[in-house]
Amino acid sequence: MLHRRPEREPVDRVFHALADPNRRVILERLSRGPATVSELSRPLPMSLSAVVQHLQVLQVSGLVRSEKVGRVRTCQIEPAALRPVERWIGARRSSWERRLDRLGEYLAEGNDEPKGGKR
Amino acid sequence: MLHRRPEREPVDRVFHALADPNRRVILERLSRGPATVSELSRPLPMSLSAVVQHLQVLQVSGLVRSEKVGRVRTCQIEPAALRPVERWIGARRSSWERRLDRLGEYLAEGNDEPKGGKR
Repeated sequence: MLHRRPEREPVDRVFHALADPNRRVILERLSRGPATVSELSRPLPMSLSAVVQHLQVLQVSGLVRSEKVGRVRTCQIEPAALRPVERWIGARRSSWERRLDRLGEYLAEGNDEPKGGKR
Repeated sequence: MLHRRPEREPVDRVFHALADPNRRVILERLSRGPATVSELSRPLPMSLSAVVQHLQVLQVSGLVRSEKVGRVRTCQIEPAALRPVERWIGARRSSWERRLDRLGEYLAEGNDEPKGGKR
């Protein structure tokens, strides 16, 4: 369970894509509707080529897809690609809640809390 | 809305902390219960000091807190610190769903789909 997983798993790519605040600004804009690359670059404090690099990371993660018509590339968000991240967070929460439930039962039986790190 | 936000916002720190697969392995272990630093380091393919650095990032993000008793430091997960990330994802999803609803209404009125990037 606790072995190192390869960097290329979908959940890794999505977490990596989300870690950059400028990429999240792009996703925030795209969640309100499709936008061209130049529309996306306008509010960002960086060159157009830097924006294109961020978009490539977003596309590799599956969070964004784009289509080129003539000279204009239009980008669109794929909210379904957020699911691995939501699942990961949900699994942590439920694993933690199960632990709290077990601890509650243990204490309800009149025991003291077990020492940390020994379960 | 689309201005650059400082890196130090809580949501940035949490996304940054989650972006590393080894840090997520640590959180997966801690969601099953507290663990000492040496227990956490055992399955990870790195030095103890690298594990300590990862733990520092996790602590700065608020996802982990630790307590030292004698020579043993025990770590614990703080699942509440995941909330800013859950809220961010939820906001993207609802923004996107509102857009789809508006598009559905527009099409139900007998219009063609508007061209991408021009709404």
